[in-house]
Amino acid sequence: MVGAVPDASESAHVATLTLRPATRTDLPAVLALLVDEERVVDPAGLVVDDVYEQAFAAIDSDPRNEILVLVEGVDDQGDDSRVVGCLQVTYIPGLGKGGAERALIEAVRIRADRRGGGLGRILMERTIERARTRGCGLVQLTSNKQREDAHRFYGRLGFARSHDGFKLAL
Amino acid sequence: MVGAVPDASESAHVATLTLRPATRTDLPAVLALLVDEERVVDPAGLVVDDVYEQAFAAIDSDPRNEILVLVEGVDDQGDDSRVVGCLQVTYIPGLGKGGAERALIEAVRIRADRRGGGLGRILMERTIERARTRGCGLVQLTSNKQREDAHRFYGRLGFARSHDGFKLAL
Repeated sequence: MVGAVPDASESAHVATLTLRPATRTDLPAVLALLVDEERVVDPAGLVVDDVYEQAFAAIDSDPRNEILVLVEGVDDQGDDSRVVGCLQVTYIPGLGKGGAERALIEAVRIRADRRGGGLGRILMERTIERARTRGCGLVQLTSNKQREDAHRFYGRLGFARSHDGFKLAL
Repeated sequence: MVGAVPDASESAHVATLTLRPATRTDLPAVLALLVDEERVVDPAGLVVDDVYEQAFAAIDSDPRNEILVLVEGVDDQGDDSRVVGCLQVTYIPGLGKGGAERALIEAVRIRADRRGGGLGRILMERTIERARTRGCGLVQLTSNKQREDAHRFYGRLGFARSHDGFKLAL
């Protein structure tokens, strides 16, 4: 159990939470979170095909990319049901900000049956702290314009809604 | 002269343009573009201190990051005055979109005395084509909400203004 911290400040449902990089063992749970919009998807029912294996390996082997998982309870890194949230961080080197990296966050997810209980805030706060410890000068993300609830959430975390986000599918 | 292409469709000011990854020799010209807001900054007058040397080396050695420069005329990779635009691209691996990378574009610049002549469009179009050739599934960027002119520019290039961009300084 590396890095597990009791969360006395959170609700009784949040006993012990760990934020750590996902391992291959977590991949089904992460994929379940990514496809889970309205209801919990059972990781055991997912087929992890080669495309996901290769994509995960690409992220896992890149020192500037990581998928972080928020794990509840004693983290034995083998029990899918304990992964309650995830996100991806890309650490981007740049010429601005005295050469500090910026952390780009993508694909933030909390398991459908655990939303509204403060887990999202914990996931984000620990990710921000991790970026600060690494030496990043900025954390940035984009959120679909229709997600007003998410925008309030990021505002409460201290983010400034200063930019418009543009996407072009290829 | 690698990759130089005549631009018959552009104005007479645009003779031959090359898009290529920046080399260490281009660093003063790139830094000049990054600090150039209203007027042309002479690269010869810039001191390239260690912070920038190290930041450039970090980008240059990362297979998922590159600074691209748009170079005018015969590209001898040694004449700062020929660099008329630049941007940074980060290729982000992910679990979505069948494992395809997404290309994140940052720090788009055209030299102050050359704006309004179509160079920005050429810089972006060639960067998008480069991302497509690499196999990216998406190109994304953010632009400050106050930059309405830039937003129209990205819209004409086919980008959808679908997201809000959030930033948190650390």
